[in-house]
Amino acid sequence: MDLHPLTDGTAQGGAAAEPDPATRRGKPAPHASGPTFLEQLVAEGLMIPTGVPGLYGRNTTFESICEGMNNVMTHLGRGLGAETLHFPPAMGQADFETSGYMKSFPQLAGTVHSFCGDDKGHRRLLARLEDKSDWTDQQQPTGVVLTPAACYPVYPVIARRGPLPEGGKVVDVMSYCFRHESSLEPTRMQLFRQREYVCLGTPQRIAAFREQWLERVPELATALQLPVEIDVANDPFFGRGGKLVAESQREFRLKFELLIPINDGAPPSACMSFNYHMDHFGHMWDLRSADGATAHTGCVGIGVERMALALLRHHGLDPARWPQTVRDTLWGG
Amino acid sequence: MDLHPLTDGTAQGGAAAEPDPATRRGKPAPHASGPTFLEQLVAEGLMIPTGVPGLYGRNTTFESICEGMNNVMTHLGRGLGAETLHFPPAMGQADFETSGYMKSFPQLAGTVHSFCGDDKGHRRLLARLEDKSDWTDQQQPTGVVLTPAACYPVYPVIARRGPLPEGGKVVDVMSYCFRHESSLEPTRMQLFRQREYVCLGTPQRIAAFREQWLERVPELATALQLPVEIDVANDPFFGRGGKLVAESQREFRLKFELLIPINDGAPPSACMSFNYHMDHFGHMWDLRSADGATAHTGCVGIGVERMALALLRHHGLDPARWPQTVRDTLWGG
Repeated sequence: MDLHPLTDGTAQGGAAAEPDPATRRGKPAPHASGPTFLEQLVAEGLMIPTGVPGLYGRNTTFESICEGMNNVMTHLGRGLGAETLHFPPAMGQADFETSGYMKSFPQLAGTVHSFCGDDKGHRRLLARLEDKSDWTDQQQPTGVVLTPAACYPVYPVIARRGPLPEGGKVVDVMSYCFRHESSLEPTRMQLFRQREYVCLGTPQRIAAFREQWLERVPELATALQLPVEIDVANDPFFGRGGKLVAESQREFRLKFELLIPINDGAPPSACMSFNYHMDHFGHMWDLRSADGATAHTGCVGIGVERMALALLRHHGLDPARWPQTVRDTLWGG
Repeated sequence: MDLHPLTDGTAQGGAAAEPDPATRRGKPAPHASGPTFLEQLVAEGLMIPTGVPGLYGRNTTFESICEGMNNVMTHLGRGLGAETLHFPPAMGQADFETSGYMKSFPQLAGTVHSFCGDDKGHRRLLARLEDKSDWTDQQQPTGVVLTPAACYPVYPVIARRGPLPEGGKVVDVMSYCFRHESSLEPTRMQLFRQREYVCLGTPQRIAAFREQWLERVPELATALQLPVEIDVANDPFFGRGGKLVAESQREFRLKFELLIPINDGAPPSACMSFNYHMDHFGHMWDLRSADGATAHTGCVGIGVERMALALLRHHGLDPARWPQTVRDTLWGG
């Protein structure tokens, strides 16, 4: 693999990397009358419909591409001294509430509910099932909430350890995430994996971390032979108030996205993002730097399935026939 | 690794394997006044509390044991000609309803709910969050249900393909599963992984498949140096009616479990199970054998985290110091 791992610490930030103009454009042609990209993926057996838009099974070929992208991320993060943590795809409701997610993205979150009734309630439930009517009215919240982004379970765990070490900290995490978005675009799954590096420390530490990654992106795009753009972005904050937050996120250049054309005749999809949360999570969880100041946080992450879809879109549905350098980047040369 | 892979097809069933008397007993001593097993796992950093019983983060050591157990299962299944499928940790509500799970285990299932309201509803939600009162009353079911067992998403996908091939079929699947069980026993997680082989075909095919696995268990126990028992078992079917179903499951010897002592002074935990569903799923999803008869199904699966906990319990909290043969079995010799 040609990509150089990032190194910990002292890299100085510069301007955001300019995407290589040579790979800047490459929007896939609209499917016109032929099968859609999703239909092609399904016909090839790469994605397996489950009857619910955004929930798909996958075959081993698709999964091996996901593994390859994880290899790339592991390789890139090798110099960062990251601690790897693993979490199930859900978190406790108290930590979830603390994150402030319901303020910003209530429409996307998923709470987990269970039947907590007795024999009589169960008979009523079964009668409704029998009648094909709604049986979920007896479901009660369990205090478990699906993970909205891979980094969310990280902050409370690190906060409970006390102040950060001198020089801050980097955590490597991958998790299934849930977003309540029903869509026929293969890139918009309801359950998908994010692989993230989370940086916690001083504002300077986070800025340097983000710049390192932004500088590395053109190299990544070249190695994977993908047409990419990097753009300032904003999240889909909820409601009228959310519009102001989104504008401010854009204005202060807090979020950058790596965009790759994937879907038929649609704008390019965000496949990787760079987020600077300032002291939002630091305040919420009372995260402290070694000097006692409220810590700042940032993260860089890929949508694992989206990166796999980008590769399938641009190099074809059979990875055995992909350019050898791309294969080497994903699976070792 | 010394274990021989299973082979596809024509193995003839015999009696259920008798566990080796030499490894039959080995219940861990109760913790008396010392730290509990869970406390030891947490102190060692292997499991990371999240504030919710049954939801834990894990470090890389714990995960490498899980990977090792998956290696063992991959190796054992190598001769079976299995098709590997991957699923996210949830399935569509229609398929979930078809499975009949809400009839048998309504108390364990988890449905996913989201906020679908407008700005006004959102303001009400935020006011409740602010007051620390219940804000989940506006959550609506999304049609997504957490996977209750790794094999559940398999049946509808295979059924949609039409009749099974001649000789039936084996599917290899691993998934996160949810069960609404709050417990301080580390073996009883709310989200955990199951690695399963699912066999679909004639009753003879399923019987042969199960016997092959049951015969291989003493060899597995020896290779991992774990004290095990195999016992006829029954599931925790819900309610008064459920008791009859459980008794019948026991009487017809439809389920066997591999039991290993893990928790402090508690009965041994089921770490692997062998289930014969007869034609239950075949009927539910109209699964057909090649000759048009309703297919029978069975599965064998491990609880990935439970097997990891069994190894940690019996060989100590530092895998670097485990017996070399155990290490070779898990990570290749």
